[in-house]
Amino acid sequence: MRISNFVKQDRLWGRLTDLAKIGATAKGGVNRQALTAEDGAARRLLADWALSRGFSIFQDDIGNLFVRRNGSEDSLPPVTTGSHLDTQPTGGRFDGAYGVMAGLEALEALEDSGIRTRHPVEVVAWTNEEGARFPPSCMGSGVYTGRYTLDWALSVQDPAGTSVGEALTAVMEQTKDAAPRGFGAPMAAYIEAHIEQGPILVSAGETIGVVTSVQSQNLFEVEVFGEEAHAGTTPRANRSDAVLAAVEIVAELERAAQDEADAMRFTVGRFIAKPGAPNTVPSHVVFTIDLRHPENSEIERMSNLIECLPGEVSARRRCRAKVTRLSDSPVTPFSDDIVGLIDSKRRDLELPGRRMPSGAGHDAMYIPPLAPTGMIFVPCVDGISHNEAEDALPHDLADGTRVLVDCLAELAGREG
Amino acid sequence: MRISNFVKQDRLWGRLTDLAKIGATAKGGVNRQALTAEDGAARRLLADWALSRGFSIFQDDIGNLFVRRNGSEDSLPPVTTGSHLDTQPTGGRFDGAYGVMAGLEALEALEDSGIRTRHPVEVVAWTNEEGARFPPSCMGSGVYTGRYTLDWALSVQDPAGTSVGEALTAVMEQTKDAAPRGFGAPMAAYIEAHIEQGPILVSAGETIGVVTSVQSQNLFEVEVFGEEAHAGTTPRANRSDAVLAAVEIVAELERAAQDEADAMRFTVGRFIAKPGAPNTVPSHVVFTIDLRHPENSEIERMSNLIECLPGEVSARRRCRAKVTRLSDSPVTPFSDDIVGLIDSKRRDLELPGRRMPSGAGHDAMYIPPLAPTGMIFVPCVDGISHNEAEDALPHDLADGTRVLVDCLAELAGREG
Repeated sequence: MRISNFVKQDRLWGRLTDLAKIGATAKGGVNRQALTAEDGAARRLLADWALSRGFSIFQDDIGNLFVRRNGSEDSLPPVTTGSHLDTQPTGGRFDGAYGVMAGLEALEALEDSGIRTRHPVEVVAWTNEEGARFPPSCMGSGVYTGRYTLDWALSVQDPAGTSVGEALTAVMEQTKDAAPRGFGAPMAAYIEAHIEQGPILVSAGETIGVVTSVQSQNLFEVEVFGEEAHAGTTPRANRSDAVLAAVEIVAELERAAQDEADAMRFTVGRFIAKPGAPNTVPSHVVFTIDLRHPENSEIERMSNLIECLPGEVSARRRCRAKVTRLSDSPVTPFSDDIVGLIDSKRRDLELPGRRMPSGAGHDAMYIPPLAPTGMIFVPCVDGISHNEAEDALPHDLADGTRVLVDCLAELAGREG
Repeated sequence: MRISNFVKQDRLWGRLTDLAKIGATAKGGVNRQALTAEDGAARRLLADWALSRGFSIFQDDIGNLFVRRNGSEDSLPPVTTGSHLDTQPTGGRFDGAYGVMAGLEALEALEDSGIRTRHPVEVVAWTNEEGARFPPSCMGSGVYTGRYTLDWALSVQDPAGTSVGEALTAVMEQTKDAAPRGFGAPMAAYIEAHIEQGPILVSAGETIGVVTSVQSQNLFEVEVFGEEAHAGTTPRANRSDAVLAAVEIVAELERAAQDEADAMRFTVGRFIAKPGAPNTVPSHVVFTIDLRHPENSEIERMSNLIECLPGEVSARRRCRAKVTRLSDSPVTPFSDDIVGLIDSKRRDLELPGRRMPSGAGHDAMYIPPLAPTGMIFVPCVDGISHNEAEDALPHDLADGTRVLVDCLAELAGREG
């Protein structure tokens, strides 16, 4: 008997639909940024669903929320799945939410099957995967795995000056019935299900992406400092115009990032000029650069330019610049064993698919030092993500969950 | 007897110092943006000072606040002076505040002299001159003189989505003891005192600028629309990146604005990319262009480019653009009579000075259709303004007020 026979497509879709109501936008997307009231409400909903099936819940000090189905040898490390509940400011209904709901569906399918596992099986909702409000991304998994210290993470501020610590207190209050959990507790294995967020599976008409690695990913913050001056009375020769310096920097970096293979991902996602009054020459600009490439050498070439160019351009324009590397992660390979397991379960279920790298970063990329790790991709419509128009098909989402639960059951040592 | 003998430098300086406490910043500047609680408190303080000297107060429906010393023939139109109490987000202590406090000092000097005038003399604090929070600038004087409709002005929103109408209600509540006043009531003359906000007087060691005109001034808002996409998975060829399109537009316009004479004032004061998440390709950028030049023909050349270029660049980058002209005012000449009067009073007081155009826009530029208009400039330290470091010398400020009150007394028909 396959546990995947107990996956219910309608239950999964219904839960995704209910979850998408929290922070729903007029255009059919979701705005449920990390550590907002909406994020707290989504966490509460997950906790309620878990408790109503008799699962237990835990949370650690950065707010990662765990749902546990006990094992018959419950002191063994859990086999874990999950993703995140936070979204981009104009995000979609599936990015992150799918991985958490697929995990819950997997737990329920196990429960419905009546089959016990030796290891406990857990679903985790990692805190602040998007990093949209509080960069960098994957903060919760980063703290859990020791990549960031808790103190540093709590001190990170959003553009309005609210810290993670302040926002987290209110959100964790929503799930204060969760038992406390420490960081870095071992896992037997970790598998994350996610929409692909790109066009490859959907273009090929395939259902399952067996993820082999995550490409290199880097986040820079560039600040340019000039001098405020009156827009009507200050000659060009006397200006230290931070916005014009920043514009030249971005334009030059964009030119340098244009590779023939179109493999470099160069994104200036945030660009804010201050004080922001139309008739004052801006004295301060902050912008971010998200830089990704499948090869570490290309990242190094662009990183060197990003470190040097802002200072050179700014000096020529009577400004100065500061470049901060907020995060950098080289190519992260996943476990051959997990990749092989996912691929074999996919074949058992006769689902078309392929092995592929992940273009996006995910919490899964921080887990390999802790446990054998892998990911399952399912297609999203037109490859669109980080967009309110993000969409996915119910049967694809159910197929990904079927592969997931069969993997989890085997890894956790099914008894029967 | 000169009324200017009754001008008290210490009283003027003390009031400017007290006023600068409202919205004071750590760096010695002022953040008292239009229609904030701080703006309301400053208006209340002006009203209290006025009432304590027996002057009466009025306000119109856009919040312009008038202080009146009655005339002996009180039905004659008032001779009016004034400026504004709102500041840039990181503004100084004198921009606007000086013109209002110089006006109040002039009324007090008249009162102390015991001399009556046939015309009433009024001081006005115009609403939202800066346009920093709610573009365009000179909103209060613009509505008063019929340049903008009240309904349109009330509908303007700040970046947080608060409208002028909402913010104004709370601020006007602070001065609800002011009698109502209609728009466009005639004035016999209007003279505004202001710091120069540029380097000309201070470089020449002169005290009084007799302003002959205001240079042409234009404000554009450019919006670029792209498509949100995931920063890690979306190839360059599939992106519609609004921020990179906007950067190219600004860079090209900057090149076109570089005249040899350095007379073109091209300022991108606001630049905001949305949604603003580091790992999402931005779908929307809004930026402003403040454009000024002493010659209308040069403004026309740049304006044509600003209307066309954003659409061309955006189309090439799979985006689209929208350009809105928020305000445009051609060169505004002031009254020969008022210019001559100010210059003769300056000479009578043996103050060094010159006739000069204004590089900055001021409320005074909207008054000429209503009344003969002029302005008095005094130096500011290093020509710095729209900056928390803005500074001015007490004796220069008092000298400007002396010229002002002698002009007002003559225009209002002094009796004795």
